[in-house]
Amino acid sequence: MSDNSETVEIHGHIIDSLSLPKVLDELIEAGADYEILEFNVGKSHQDPSYARIKIWTETEDELERALRRIHPFGAAPVDIGEVTLEEVDIDGAFPASFYSTTNFPTEIRIGGRWIPVEHPEMDCGIAVEETRAFTIPVADVKRGQMLVTGRDGIRVIPSERPRGKSALEFEFMGSSVSSEKPKELQVQRVASQMKAVKKEGQKILWVLGPAVIHTGSGPDLSALAANGWVDVVFAGNGFAAHDIESALFKTSLGVYLQEGTSAEGGHEHHIRAINLVRRSGSIEKAVADGVVTEGVMYQLVKHDIPFILAGSVRDDGPLPDTITDILESQKAMRELSGNVGLTIIVATMLHGIATGNILPASVPIICVDINPSTVTKLLDRGSHQSAGLVTDVGLFIAQLAGELGASKS
Amino acid sequence: MSDNSETVEIHGHIIDSLSLPKVLDELIEAGADYEILEFNVGKSHQDPSYARIKIWTETEDELERALRRIHPFGAAPVDIGEVTLEEVDIDGAFPASFYSTTNFPTEIRIGGRWIPVEHPEMDCGIAVEETRAFTIPVADVKRGQMLVTGRDGIRVIPSERPRGKSALEFEFMGSSVSSEKPKELQVQRVASQMKAVKKEGQKILWVLGPAVIHTGSGPDLSALAANGWVDVVFAGNGFAAHDIESALFKTSLGVYLQEGTSAEGGHEHHIRAINLVRRSGSIEKAVADGVVTEGVMYQLVKHDIPFILAGSVRDDGPLPDTITDILESQKAMRELSGNVGLTIIVATMLHGIATGNILPASVPIICVDINPSTVTKLLDRGSHQSAGLVTDVGLFIAQLAGELGASKS
Amino acid sequence: MSDNSETVEIHGHIIDSLSLPKVLDELIEAGADYEILEFNVGKSHQDPSYARIKIWTETEDELERALRRIHPFGAAPVDIGEVTLEEVDIDGAFPASFYSTTNFPTEIRIGGRWIPVEHPEMDCGIAVEETRAFTIPVADVKRGQMLVTGRDGIRVIPSERPRGKSALEFEFMGSSVSSEKPKELQVQRVASQMKAVKKEGQKILWVLGPAVIHTGSGPDLSALAANGWVDVVFAGNGFAAHDIESALFKTSLGVYLQEGTSAEGGHEHHIRAINLVRRSGSIEKAVADGVVTEGVMYQLVKHDIPFILAGSVRDDGPLPDTITDILESQKAMRELSGNVGLTIIVATMLHGIATGNILPASVPIICVDINPSTVTKLLDRGSHQSAGLVTDVGLFIAQLAGELGASKS
Amino acid sequence: MSDNSETVEIHGHIIDSLSLPKVLDELIEAGADYEILEFNVGKSHQDPSYARIKIWTETEDELERALRRIHPFGAAPVDIGEVTLEEVDIDGAFPASFYSTTNFPTEIRIGGRWIPVEHPEMDCGIAVEETRAFTIPVADVKRGQMLVTGRDGIRVIPSERPRGKSALEFEFMGSSVSSEKPKELQVQRVASQMKAVKKEGQKILWVLGPAVIHTGSGPDLSALAANGWVDVVFAGNGFAAHDIESALFKTSLGVYLQEGTSAEGGHEHHIRAINLVRRSGSIEKAVADGVVTEGVMYQLVKHDIPFILAGSVRDDGPLPDTITDILESQKAMRELSGNVGLTIIVATMLHGIATGNILPASVPIICVDINPSTVTKLLDRGSHQSAGLVTDVGLFIAQLAGELGASKS
Repeated sequence: MSDNSETVEIHGHIIDSLSLPKVLDELIEAGADYEILEFNVGKSHQDPSYARIKIWTETEDELERALRRIHPFGAAPVDIGEVTLEEVDIDGAFPASFYSTTNFPTEIRIGGRWIPVEHPEMDCGIAVEETRAFTIPVADVKRGQMLVTGRDGIRVIPSERPRGKSALEFEFMGSSVSSEKPKELQVQRVASQMKAVKKEGQKILWVLGPAVIHTGSGPDLSALAANGWVDVVFAGNGFAAHDIESALFKTSLGVYLQEGTSAEGGHEHHIRAINLVRRSGSIEKAVADGVVTEGVMYQLVKHDIPFILAGSVRDDGPLPDTITDILESQKAMRELSGNVGLTIIVATMLHGIATGNILPASVPIICVDINPSTVTKLLDRGSHQSAGLVTDVGLFIAQLAGELGASKS
Repeated sequence: MSDNSETVEIHGHIIDSLSLPKVLDELIEAGADYEILEFNVGKSHQDPSYARIKIWTETEDELERALRRIHPFGAAPVDIGEVTLEEVDIDGAFPASFYSTTNFPTEIRIGGRWIPVEHPEMDCGIAVEETRAFTIPVADVKRGQMLVTGRDGIRVIPSERPRGKSALEFEFMGSSVSSEKPKELQVQRVASQMKAVKKEGQKILWVLGPAVIHTGSGPDLSALAANGWVDVVFAGNGFAAHDIESALFKTSLGVYLQEGTSAEGGHEHHIRAINLVRRSGSIEKAVADGVVTEGVMYQLVKHDIPFILAGSVRDDGPLPDTITDILESQKAMRELSGNVGLTIIVATMLHGIATGNILPASVPIICVDINPSTVTKLLDRGSHQSAGLVTDVGLFIAQLAGELGASKS
Repeated sequence: MSDNSETVEIHGHIIDSLSLPKVLDELIEAGADYEILEFNVGKSHQDPSYARIKIWTETEDELERALRRIHPFGAAPVDIGEVTLEEVDIDGAFPASFYSTTNFPTEIRIGGRWIPVEHPEMDCGIAVEETRAFTIPVADVKRGQMLVTGRDGIRVIPSERPRGKSALEFEFMGSSVSSEKPKELQVQRVASQMKAVKKEGQKILWVLGPAVIHTGSGPDLSALAANGWVDVVFAGNGFAAHDIESALFKTSLGVYLQEGTSAEGGHEHHIRAINLVRRSGSIEKAVADGVVTEGVMYQLVKHDIPFILAGSVRDDGPLPDTITDILESQKAMRELSGNVGLTIIVATMLHGIATGNILPASVPIICVDINPSTVTKLLDRGSHQSAGLVTDVGLFIAQLAGELGASKS
Repeated sequence: MSDNSETVEIHGHIIDSLSLPKVLDELIEAGADYEILEFNVGKSHQDPSYARIKIWTETEDELERALRRIHPFGAAPVDIGEVTLEEVDIDGAFPASFYSTTNFPTEIRIGGRWIPVEHPEMDCGIAVEETRAFTIPVADVKRGQMLVTGRDGIRVIPSERPRGKSALEFEFMGSSVSSEKPKELQVQRVASQMKAVKKEGQKILWVLGPAVIHTGSGPDLSALAANGWVDVVFAGNGFAAHDIESALFKTSLGVYLQEGTSAEGGHEHHIRAINLVRRSGSIEKAVADGVVTEGVMYQLVKHDIPFILAGSVRDDGPLPDTITDILESQKAMRELSGNVGLTIIVATMLHGIATGNILPASVPIICVDINPSTVTKLLDRGSHQSAGLVTDVGLFIAQLAGELGASKS
């Protein structure tokens, strides 16, 4: 037995949350040996368990890698120490040994106390200012800030799987991504989750792709917005352009939404819609000017519902409200993501991933797309409460509006 | 200019049906030269046009191949001659030079007269008995029958694209296969096409896969059947087994359709359902015995709606009604396909292709599937009136039932 | 605490195989309370663990359901008793309370001894004759046979996850189904698994769909067959028909495989190929007659490699070798599945599921398809050693043939 | 017959290019009546045809709409007049009646002469400066510029379908989007098209998504770049970040490309790679500093191959070379798109659409993706020479490199 050993501990619902098995898995895959020194199992499922595990490896490097593997599952050395801080030497770049964050709740040990890290977000650094610790994206970091490096003094709190009645709902919603599930039931579950979130005074964030408009769901979504079921919107130029196209020309991508036929010259409609809003100066002014008199964007303006239109390189125009700088877009999205209790991503991979990137793991995400690959990809980084619906975006929003009593007029 | 030449003619709406351009395309791709000898264009779109084209090639073999290419688009030699007949020498096999059919209306010239071929069906031979000509599958042919060989004396009548108001509806429904179309509108169009078919006294054939049950659409489909919107059903053992599973255990594939949770031992439910029906002897007897008291199969039995359950090699059980021989299944399906005015294929590639194989091109097909590849493949062999809906099977049937006033109780 | 209680035990690698957490999960989801009475954890990962758990519920019915949920994970009552047998009363139907099998190794306790059940297969019954116990499909059962009912005296042995070096390969191959994995590496792993299977004297079973021929992989697959890498083939009429079409006409579905262009009248080629083989009487005779002189089917005949062509309702023709009765097909497939050490399913959902249905869980399956949904569905019922490759069937077989030194000439 | 009539003419290969049938189609769908006044058909397929058609409608508005429908197919009023120009009144917005461009070659009539419009690009305006006419995106337009409005004096030249030998290749490559095509042949065709383009002194533009790296194709693509087969690259931050991750850590998204296993802490690798390049200041400097010593980006720097990394809202970091403003990205892409003779889009919808938006229809596009929906969407706006390959990105690039003799070392 070599000297390269460390004793780690892990507590909580480590059996039924699968944390312990995952830690043992990782150790085996890392080629490490282990011995379970102590193991107190919770007698029933309300009781937490505790395990103390000795790990050893052939080289020190292997030990380091093994510890890094089990860190995200909540297993940490018994003597975890204090965080190491290093001063940032270049604007917009971290020291090479920076600690890279997960989106789980994280605490750092400093001055003998555990401090929670504000706004858990993936792939960031942790900056420390006096008694505060917060995540910071690499592009925002400034010379002279103090940044957490290494892995000492840091603990991640993995989320537990829900239990009881809500666990059953979770089982249905969250299990595998498949189009072959009872569909009306799925819609009802989304509706009841929305009601619960509103009851707790939290916000519902919608992340929307242009297919919402192409499939004719604009009027239903407008009704949802008018009835208080939409608190924040993240979308792109395309969503807003086609929504305004439908308000001005009754078409989306040139197809009449009430007849399904192509309009003559209809492929020009979206760029004409964009141009008209550019002439007004902004969507808000276009509403004030009487240019835009219906649609989702109209309802957002009318009901003071904040929205972000994040630009992308495939945009036509764009609309004057579209943020053309991607770092500005990310910043704006972060600012609007506070107190969000539920995120509903519909028919957009790009904006869905962007939103998933900035949200803490604790915010549940519901992804709705007709393509199972898109749903699978979006759920990858979500919380345990997240769920994917492989369904038709158009029929989904229509049914949801009906379920919530928000019918289009 | 070589001697290998032939003069062909083509008439009808050859410009706006694209027949003429397609014929010229094929000639170019066959490497043939051509000269348009006569061309009378219909002045307006009501008038038929006519073209006479001289074709020549370097070798006689090339000429033969060029003529074969343009034959399916209605271009035939001016002097088309009479059909050649050959006696079948082996049971279950055609003479090597047999004429292989398309699913378009076809006529053969015999005794100086044009005779229509009964039941146009792809990949068959044409048998002639006295004054009748009819398609015959290779497995059914008997020694001594007279069969059409070669290509002389045969003309195919390509279907024309619909015009006028119905053309506009067709444009919307039939154009490209895409999930990004106005969805409620698509459902309305299907409903109105169903009403039109019933009004003309024709039958609606449903071809159904098990996802119809998994997505919770069984009650809506039952209501459609109870209200006269289902005249014939083609399905497999899986569809019926899961439908009866849902009647007996409230689950489909072991998932409770009302709660979405897994039943304990639920993966056994479908085989238990099958076993119980086997104990009764047939679905009809299981209904009579009071074993099966609800569901789609129950409604079919109760309302005397004929159904075919065609067996496949992946079947469990199977149910006693499942036809285990594939040639028997095909024969049974052919017998029930008379006077079908509309075929609706939902969530099944296997049974959808099998149905497409036996139907004439003139029967419109509506394919509904969440997977665009499936829809594209199924539409390949359909008529000009066919349409594909890339949508959620569960929500589609629910909306359709609502649209037709056939609500589940 | 009610009287509805039972004590169960579970042993083996119950932590790192996730069996224990899964059992606890199931109990919670069943609404049962539990207490872990004894828990001996294996100190290192070579050592087995053991747990004894007391379960109680409010009603006896709930207890029954809870026990049924944990049964497939290897948790069985301490006092498991002996199997109950019941005489079959009707040909082709089980007694209503029959035990429905999994595809995991299973033992039954009879006369105080544990007897293994021969040929584990899903959704069957267990028949007992003297000292033998074997699975039997419902359609094959005869009046007077003795069948296992209930759940007493039955234990299922869940398969353990592989460990060590092969575990690492498994991790790569078997983890998530995704097209975004290192592809040449995946092909190398399949090749090395094939070599390992042959070294152990086991058979490689290929299950093949027609896209293998359409994508131009016929010559590579022929080379694999000629070089001993194909021991058994399961396919359908379409695969063989297009293979023979390519041998006779150089086309597949009418497309020239060497030029990619459509042959004139090419859509008739497959039915002409089928007809010619029907004239010979069988594929073997068509090879003997010199009608078929190359291709995959030719190599199978030449090298005495057994194959099953299982018919389906969408078949044209079919070829004389196609088994038209589905129960006959299943029987034939079962007979050829002995000593199979690896199953490679390429581009076929229908035959893939049929094969998965009859194989024990212990036979590793590699599924190759360009559609991730197909791969996911096929892997559902496979063993822990199964793997899915979302890739291009044509390029996959070409690379694999290169990797195994079986180049087409 | 009303007074709302107009006479249009159309010439060229209007039958076999399908222009005439499409014009007639559009007229019927627009509800217009027509009479073909003159029709001179080309006798053979080398000869152009000519048609003069009188159109009339019930209202003037309908006539206007009918003319707008047929305009993109090359049908224009006999007396087409001169273009109308209007002065731009606001920076960044067109006059409301601006002419919206297609990506086909376009000419405008001014001062009695036809002037070609420079750089055909969709959804732009046409600015006129002295004797030059050029497309201009709405965001770039400045007050005081003269812009084309209305539809007078403008003609679009629809591209003709290729004929002869290249037509046959086109038929194979370009026809339907399907995964079931001969694959090695497809790769050979791409290789021969690349050789032809280089021979004519034109550039090959690659548009690349991160899956190129995940699938292990980086070394093959590096070899293609090192051997002169890559002239320009458009990609995003993700492609470059994972390429540099693979150079620094041998992983992509944390998965070792040589073993397929997950690296410990591997999910951090891409952000660590980005951070290291940020510390150098740019990719070029990171190469110069010896930080990046292999990979695609390394080869681009080493061989002075220009690249654009267009930022998107989901980017981590980003790399210092990533252009964060989307309008800057579009501008940079336009500047590098001159003399491009072939565009190969691999595994990216976002950058593929962005590239399709700015290219003239005359530049052939080859789209390669494993998802058929992506390929279909990308081809929508391409030229007649465009082709889609539904295949495995990893195996495709490996085979292509082999075909072009650019093997990785």
